[in-house]
Amino acid sequence: MAKPTWRLHPDRALPTDPLQREIAREIYASSAELPIISMHGHIDVGAIDRNDAFGDPAELLIIPDHYLVRMLVSQGLRTEDLGVRPLDPAAGYETDHRAVWRRFAENWKLFRGTPTRYWMEHELVEVFGITEEPSAASADAIYDQLSATLARPEFRIRELFNRFNIEVLSTTDAPDSDLSEHAALAADGWGARVIPTFRPDGIFYPDRAGWRASIRSLATRNGTDITDYRSFLAAVQERRFAFVAAGALATDHGHLSADTTPLSASDAERIFAEALQCPVDAAKGAAFAANMLFESARMSVEDGLVMQLHPGVQRDHSDEIAQTFGPDHGFDIPRAIDYTRGIHPLLNAFGLDPRFRIILFTIDETVYSRELAPLAGAYPSVRLGAPWWFLDSPGGMARFRELVTETAGFYNTSGFVDDTRAFTSIPARHDLSRRIDAGYLAKLVAEHRLSFDEATETAIDLAYTLPLLAYKRRDAGETASTPAQTPQQERAAR
Amino acid sequence: MAKPTWRLHPDRALPTDPLQREIAREIYASSAELPIISMHGHIDVGAIDRNDAFGDPAELLIIPDHYLVRMLVSQGLRTEDLGVRPLDPAAGYETDHRAVWRRFAENWKLFRGTPTRYWMEHELVEVFGITEEPSAASADAIYDQLSATLARPEFRIRELFNRFNIEVLSTTDAPDSDLSEHAALAADGWGARVIPTFRPDGIFYPDRAGWRASIRSLATRNGTDITDYRSFLAAVQERRFAFVAAGALATDHGHLSADTTPLSASDAERIFAEALQCPVDAAKGAAFAANMLFESARMSVEDGLVMQLHPGVQRDHSDEIAQTFGPDHGFDIPRAIDYTRGIHPLLNAFGLDPRFRIILFTIDETVYSRELAPLAGAYPSVRLGAPWWFLDSPGGMARFRELVTETAGFYNTSGFVDDTRAFTSIPARHDLSRRIDAGYLAKLVAEHRLSFDEATETAIDLAYTLPLLAYKRRDAGETASTPAQTPQQERAAR
Amino acid sequence: MAKPTWRLHPDRALPTDPLQREIAREIYASSAELPIISMHGHIDVGAIDRNDAFGDPAELLIIPDHYLVRMLVSQGLRTEDLGVRPLDPAAGYETDHRAVWRRFAENWKLFRGTPTRYWMEHELVEVFGITEEPSAASADAIYDQLSATLARPEFRIRELFNRFNIEVLSTTDAPDSDLSEHAALAADGWGARVIPTFRPDGIFYPDRAGWRASIRSLATRNGTDITDYRSFLAAVQERRFAFVAAGALATDHGHLSADTTPLSASDAERIFAEALQCPVDAAKGAAFAANMLFESARMSVEDGLVMQLHPGVQRDHSDEIAQTFGPDHGFDIPRAIDYTRGIHPLLNAFGLDPRFRIILFTIDETVYSRELAPLAGAYPSVRLGAPWWFLDSPGGMARFRELVTETAGFYNTSGFVDDTRAFTSIPARHDLSRRIDAGYLAKLVAEHRLSFDEATETAIDLAYTLPLLAYKRRDAGETASTPAQTPQQERAAR
Repeated sequence: MAKPTWRLHPDRALPTDPLQREIAREIYASSAELPIISMHGHIDVGAIDRNDAFGDPAELLIIPDHYLVRMLVSQGLRTEDLGVRPLDPAAGYETDHRAVWRRFAENWKLFRGTPTRYWMEHELVEVFGITEEPSAASADAIYDQLSATLARPEFRIRELFNRFNIEVLSTTDAPDSDLSEHAALAADGWGARVIPTFRPDGIFYPDRAGWRASIRSLATRNGTDITDYRSFLAAVQERRFAFVAAGALATDHGHLSADTTPLSASDAERIFAEALQCPVDAAKGAAFAANMLFESARMSVEDGLVMQLHPGVQRDHSDEIAQTFGPDHGFDIPRAIDYTRGIHPLLNAFGLDPRFRIILFTIDETVYSRELAPLAGAYPSVRLGAPWWFLDSPGGMARFRELVTETAGFYNTSGFVDDTRAFTSIPARHDLSRRIDAGYLAKLVAEHRLSFDEATETAIDLAYTLPLLAYKRRDAGETASTPAQTPQQERAAR
Repeated sequence: MAKPTWRLHPDRALPTDPLQREIAREIYASSAELPIISMHGHIDVGAIDRNDAFGDPAELLIIPDHYLVRMLVSQGLRTEDLGVRPLDPAAGYETDHRAVWRRFAENWKLFRGTPTRYWMEHELVEVFGITEEPSAASADAIYDQLSATLARPEFRIRELFNRFNIEVLSTTDAPDSDLSEHAALAADGWGARVIPTFRPDGIFYPDRAGWRASIRSLATRNGTDITDYRSFLAAVQERRFAFVAAGALATDHGHLSADTTPLSASDAERIFAEALQCPVDAAKGAAFAANMLFESARMSVEDGLVMQLHPGVQRDHSDEIAQTFGPDHGFDIPRAIDYTRGIHPLLNAFGLDPRFRIILFTIDETVYSRELAPLAGAYPSVRLGAPWWFLDSPGGMARFRELVTETAGFYNTSGFVDDTRAFTSIPARHDLSRRIDAGYLAKLVAEHRLSFDEATETAIDLAYTLPLLAYKRRDAGETASTPAQTPQQERAAR
Repeated sequence: MAKPTWRLHPDRALPTDPLQREIAREIYASSAELPIISMHGHIDVGAIDRNDAFGDPAELLIIPDHYLVRMLVSQGLRTEDLGVRPLDPAAGYETDHRAVWRRFAENWKLFRGTPTRYWMEHELVEVFGITEEPSAASADAIYDQLSATLARPEFRIRELFNRFNIEVLSTTDAPDSDLSEHAALAADGWGARVIPTFRPDGIFYPDRAGWRASIRSLATRNGTDITDYRSFLAAVQERRFAFVAAGALATDHGHLSADTTPLSASDAERIFAEALQCPVDAAKGAAFAANMLFESARMSVEDGLVMQLHPGVQRDHSDEIAQTFGPDHGFDIPRAIDYTRGIHPLLNAFGLDPRFRIILFTIDETVYSRELAPLAGAYPSVRLGAPWWFLDSPGGMARFRELVTETAGFYNTSGFVDDTRAFTSIPARHDLSRRIDAGYLAKLVAEHRLSFDEATETAIDLAYTLPLLAYKRRDAGETASTPAQTPQQERAAR
């Protein structure tokens, strides 16, 4: 008997309870076809500008995907055997990408139950039209089919961008970026579709290798001297204005903790001056970085950029991996964080300011109900970011809604944010989040806690309206599905 | 087509799995009509004594409800525009309560998925007979209907008390309360229905503004001088006896942490003496407060008052809100707590004493399975309090049973405790807890882990018997649904 | 009407959703009859060697079960009244075991919803053929029936071992064990079925009472002098080799924290020398113990023993219980742990070594998704141990899969590990885990996230193959359900 063709089931990731599934199907139908709003991600703007082809299947789907590589490594395969190039290429690594693909396909079973499996299935079937499941037997045939597909013009990045119905996509950019690729895209009519995000981590941690080089590069880009803390702050502010001019709506901050304690100007100046001379210790680095979060909030009040905070990850847990391959190779491990105390100085200073907006992310789920939902359910500036990284998964997203909604509601969350570097996985991720939210909403309807009409409106808001509002791409006034008038608006309208 | 009348579905908040729902319906039926036992709350005893009318709809349902106000504030409305009076009223605030109500009604969507929505629906429909959902369009009509209803004599507080079938309700009272309103109620035959609770936080934190005034007031009420730690302890004990005489069954303690480390008498005396002269620092305040928890336990062994501990909240996270409006305006944010170490000195000293009882609450869900269930499942004095504050919600209560029951069972929990300051929400809250418990029990029955008869007996115990037993309103011996004889009783009975 | 006979429902603990239940039944059928792999437990090897009868019902099922005793104590019964012998027997304790049994039976309701109830039901019905539920009325009849059953030859431990279809069972043994009983079993042909585990906690904490005696005993057993840290390390290594020779596959470490920071040889030597003279403080004890975890990993790289780490329990929370009855009487309470930082030194040094394997356990559920799944999903040496102690329960196991699978997959988990000291509960525990895993897998199938064939293969792996692989009882190469070839194997095969 022939194996049945591999396909995606229309009800996948919806609840299985018969009543909930029926309702969820209809709710999902209302959001499934909405444009994709991708307000936070790590897609290479240059690739969009050049409209690159994606290379071979391993280059596209295996080698750069640290979720996927880490899983294979966790089961005994070596990073270099998966095609990942060591910092010193002479150390040797697999350059036969067909072999890399085969190693992945043979170990397909390891991904059971993971979002990597779910996304990959969506990409292979839906985006690339593969009809066979990866396995040792099918590896070569799939590799050949994928290779042929990727060579076709309609599989270039801008064509997929259109096919995926992406309305807007934010990239992540260093402060010293010249933003020329964004300018080129704008000249090409793509300015509203691809926008930059200001990501200053590299200049905020003076204890890190490379900090001084980053400061020099920032000075060069800004065309000013950076000789002290004051001129540093001025340069940061100027670059932020340059990003605003290039269409940026947000900044992004990946910090070890959620600490936002400001330093006195003299303490900040002292650490800055010391760091210009020689590396400072980790404690000083952390104190300076915390201070810069506070200063970033102050600047956001002025220039309107939405802050995004991603704390709580111990980067490069394995020295050996970091030394061999550099950062971001799957050995970043979360730690417990304390948002209530950490974010207190910042919110106490700016949290009630109507000009300020901050989106808080976590990969420590314990802070959802204990800290983040209470904060987002009180401070008007706070929105709760979508589940991130390891939590961007069916169960992770379901738990997020369960743990957050009762205290913060739906409208204090950011709506879906994909945070990916894998372009062809974007539709899978957005589709999955719409399914999970539809399931959660269906449960509320089935339990008679929400009407069906409210649920569909909410589903549309979570998928589409809320990300636009959270990042100030749209004003609350522009959409029906937003809070009604503020008293100020109300008075003005009388 | 006419909009269907707004109504409560009889199956709301029950599980949607067909088998579970059918069982849950029957279990719920067994507990639905039981009297309400409300052993911990914040209802104003004076209002009951005077049998006050409730004022207008905003005064009853919006302005004093910090759950509700915080949600509107989190979406950009200002606290003062919701009718909340600033400490300095000259700063201005909304006095048009119809406008306040309208702001709430227009933003009804923000409450989707929250317990505020659930409770409000129950109150409006069930208690007040409203048949339309709040919205901009319906706001005025509902306001008018509510106003008319609230003016009717059968909507005064004592009439609702009877209608709600409240068997007993505990208020929360400061140590310097003269308890005269409780005495008046007792004289009126309501002594067994409304009882006081001793809440000494104000005199336990010597670092707080107002502490000295509280001590003076305590001395005045007690008719003794408080000149040192020793006379302070004596006054505390005497006031506790006065509360016992007035019918109190419990004390209540809202602390920043769960620390219960005793101080030496000389250290306690030193802090107390210093604090009488000038404010002490937060560390000394916390140490003294921890010591007073330990001392409170010692006193409880003597006078039989059940301790309630509510730790883990950082009060007044926003200085601006606290300075403008005072405490308790929605900006209290939970923090992680350590019960295992914090409560250790207290339990190690008194935890096995059969005269002692302590009920532990948390809003840090992570301690449920890790710390509280193991503690409650070992120490005979410990009961695990019902989900509190942000966790008094459908999901919060469901997770509580999931995380606690397997280690502590049902009979080491307190049964439902509502902790509300919103009188007309009491039936909604108790009804909801009975539904959630019925759902959890139905799952156990449907999974063949419990018989149906056991489940209904347990449902009755959770709603009615256990709160009475936990607060020693009733002896274990008085009910069938309690532990069988202790060996001591057994021997005595031979 | 006659009461229906007490029996186990074939669908117990399976999901109740109709679609999930049907799938779960079939998945469960594929794993239900597999042999039991019991790689971590606390069964007395001597009892197996002697093929002991189990004594009376209270001796078998009540007195040694600290889960059960703690629950009764938590509701006011006294430990001594449950037949537990105090360290000073003159203090008095119940010696009438029928009375002990009766106290348990009368309080059967306290166990509703707990795994103790579930396991006991399985044991009484399935293992011993009891047809009535425990109660005051049935207590004596059940006691008599159990007593008669336990006296029958087919209820001796080796006969039950066969009946239970246990393929291999690990005991837990002190470093100074002479392993003679294991040798006797081996001589009897049972060597492959009962294997020792090296458990060195007693010699790793130099601050604990009894440490010096343990060191002396270790020296005696090893036939060497232990005069300093160096000779201590040598003795540890030699005993490990003796365990390997006796068939051991693993070591086990029950530590207060997950700290694995190594000491310099001179610091370790200093603490060791001091401890030989007089007790050291808790901080030095903890530092030495952390160092010994690091050293144990180093030794594991050499001798191949799989490390097991069980951290995060504050032992003997009640001094009174510990002083009266000794350790392990139900007053061990979990604490929050920090795996990301604690395990960092050890994994950074050995985590990528293909010769190394460590299995990480927790009873702090908050580290599942935040720390353990990310660690297990990256380091090839790490496997995530099954839910342990309070978490070895239907809900605990379900949450484990929910929180772990999306990041670590199934194949970085250990498969089921029972950790019991109650021999007759072993089948109940393994059966329950197979049901819960079947339920989780059925949900994935019902949500179209996994095929049915994948699910049944995974169920078999979780119940049988993975425990064998995790503990290196079997090579990956020996089973179809394991990762495919490593590139090294692949090259070798060309």
